Amino acid sequence: MMRTQVAIIGSGPAGLLLGALLGKAGIDTVIVEARSQAYVAARIRAGVLEEGTTRLLQAVGCGARMKVEGLVHEGFGLAFAGRQHRIDLPAHAGGRTVTVYGQTEVTRDLMAHRAAQGWASVYEAANVALHDFGGEAPSVTYEKDGVTHTIACDFIAGCDGYHGVSRASVPDAAKALYERVYPFGWLGVLADVPPADHELVYANHPRGFALCSMRSMTRSRYYVQVPTSDKVDAWSDDAFWDELRRRLPERIADAVTPGPSIEKSIAPLRSFVCEPMRFGRLFLAGDAAHIVPPTGAKGLNLAASDVHYLSQGLIEHYGERSDSGVDAYSGRALSRIWKAERFSWWMTSTLHRFPDTDSFGQRMQEAELDYLTQSAAATSSLAENYVGLPY
Amino acid sequence: MMRTQVAIIGSGPAGLLLGALLGKAGIDTVIVEARSQAYVAARIRAGVLEEGTTRLLQAVGCGARMKVEGLVHEGFGLAFAGRQHRIDLPAHAGGRTVTVYGQTEVTRDLMAHRAAQGWASVYEAANVALHDFGGEAPSVTYEKDGVTHTIACDFIAGCDGYHGVSRASVPDAAKALYERVYPFGWLGVLADVPPADHELVYANHPRGFALCSMRSMTRSRYYVQVPTSDKVDAWSDDAFWDELRRRLPERIADAVTPGPSIEKSIAPLRSFVCEPMRFGRLFLAGDAAHIVPPTGAKGLNLAASDVHYLSQGLIEHYGERSDSGVDAYSGRALSRIWKAERFSWWMTSTLHRFPDTDSFGQRMQEAELDYLTQSAAATSSLAENYVGLPY
Repeated sequence: MMRTQVAIIGSGPAGLLLGALLGKAGIDTVIVEARSQAYVAARIRAGVLEEGTTRLLQAVGCGARMKVEGLVHEGFGLAFAGRQHRIDLPAHAGGRTVTVYGQTEVTRDLMAHRAAQGWASVYEAANVALHDFGGEAPSVTYEKDGVTHTIACDFIAGCDGYHGVSRASVPDAAKALYERVYPFGWLGVLADVPPADHELVYANHPRGFALCSMRSMTRSRYYVQVPTSDKVDAWSDDAFWDELRRRLPERIADAVTPGPSIEKSIAPLRSFVCEPMRFGRLFLAGDAAHIVPPTGAKGLNLAASDVHYLSQGLIEHYGERSDSGVDAYSGRALSRIWKAERFSWWMTSTLHRFPDTDSFGQRMQEAELDYLTQSAAATSSLAENYVGLPY
Repeated sequence: MMRTQVAIIGSGPAGLLLGALLGKAGIDTVIVEARSQAYVAARIRAGVLEEGTTRLLQAVGCGARMKVEGLVHEGFGLAFAGRQHRIDLPAHAGGRTVTVYGQTEVTRDLMAHRAAQGWASVYEAANVALHDFGGEAPSVTYEKDGVTHTIACDFIAGCDGYHGVSRASVPDAAKALYERVYPFGWLGVLADVPPADHELVYANHPRGFALCSMRSMTRSRYYVQVPTSDKVDAWSDDAFWDELRRRLPERIADAVTPGPSIEKSIAPLRSFVCEPMRFGRLFLAGDAAHIVPPTGAKGLNLAASDVHYLSQGLIEHYGERSDSGVDAYSGRALSRIWKAERFSWWMTSTLHRFPDTDSFGQRMQEAELDYLTQSAAATSSLAENYVGLPY
């Protein structure tokens, strides 16, 4: 039987960053992941990092490549009613910016760091199960190569995403779930073409939402809102580029360089929160506890603030023999999460066309965006949320 | 046949204030009103005035009684999730405040002023009709005491409300209408009891919205959200006071003094905009062109900014022989109107319980209000709209 201080379920950015924060403080962790390392490392996700997230990555020694390859963005565009307006982030958010650096890259940097430190990770762990987290001696079991393994631990951190076993292990009566499934998805295309703009452009259009994003100055990531019933195979590259440009003001549409897609997929949009985030000696963090729609790019950043709070609590527990940080974890994390849920929901509601968006609703969206462009207060409110509310 | 420069349809605050602004500039007006003077003067409406509105009333010499009897409010309360938060208006809106002074009082002051000046008003005018406003020589006809009268004029100002003849006289093909009917109404009670708080309190509650308002420190005006299917006769005073207090945090609920209702009614909630607001020599102003739900009290204030823009245009027309102000009227008015429509829709959406408000939706409302209480930027955005965006 293995023994560790904190068993971490899931080797995504939440689990890896938690492991790095705890490891730096001398706390022993084992990561247990159901998928293969190659699968996890290749997952394509968003990549707009708040300063709080980049600071955490730097603090654990994983900021070097991000500093070189990451793109610091000092603003983004809002396109609506045929025009485009730029939100100047530092001017409206106390000098703060965001960094465009793919989640895939974050995961790879954290994995390389973990391997270099020699901290234990188990990949392709089958039938992962959580035991006795309501008591004093929790444990995690999994099967690998036909053998059942047990990890005895002090705490379990459930960082295994929305579909993971951690939240599912908590009895229904002990948790409250809040959920909103949006009646559309994002059809995303990744292509090795220069982006239409050096900053992101979020577009509200009567035909539906569109987003011009990027991974680098030679790799673009574009999205268009589609009905959830759409099949990705029915969307040819040409049809995608046509639809994208139709939803953008002329200047930016003309700047789109079409090219063959190297990835194309439809992602559903969901808001979800599980309360609380602590159940005895089990803590949930990241997507295991909450999902935001991708508008505003809060998912990865919320995972980072969760594991920041959680690592603080655990470091206090082991270092100062005080459980106050551990006891405060759920409340502190949820306070920030609900604000990010609100922001993501608001940005989604303001930019997308809903099945029940009538002409009044379309005008309300345009009036909201128009007001934003004219009010310093409203712009500051948007900017402070976009760069990330303080921890 | 009578002859005037501007025929004003409707003797509500929009028509009366327009008449006063034009009269002060030496422009001749006749007001034509379908109802009796006593009926119009007795109509009970909201009464939170922006500084722009009070400045206009003072400018036309109708500010004396308002200055004595009006209550200057430097803030209001937001109640939600069992607690109450105060929005400090001057601190977040550049020193500006609002004045509580009933629309009934505004109407009476303007009527008295018009009578004292000897400007013509026709009340109880039947079958009012607008003619030839597409050409150079418009006119208005009406019947009174069995005789048909004609007023020849240069311009017609349609200030006769949502149900008036002015907007209805414009062919459908010439106007675009935007509308949202909310699936609830406001049950309002007026009672001669001291208000629960010296400021207004807007309450979000899982049972529905409630508002503590007042006309004076001895006359209270309270509202609770009810289904539109409710009948006012089915609501006893006792049932009203019980429901009101159930939706308020304990401290404020305890401060409610129940008393016999002197008025009790259910008002529907609607958002509505007609574009454009000028059709040749006919101008629409106030409720004839747009309706807001009462949350945030923008209706009367929008009527005031409309007639401010319109009077400027007409004064320019007669004084400087320039039509640029008249030509700009619709665009200038609508730019401010859409922002107030957005604010009223947002405040309504954030504070009311909709039939499709699920537990996630309730949490989003609470998160929005909670964020407001913690963000200076969000509070400033709310405050600048509440005191009124600049003309």
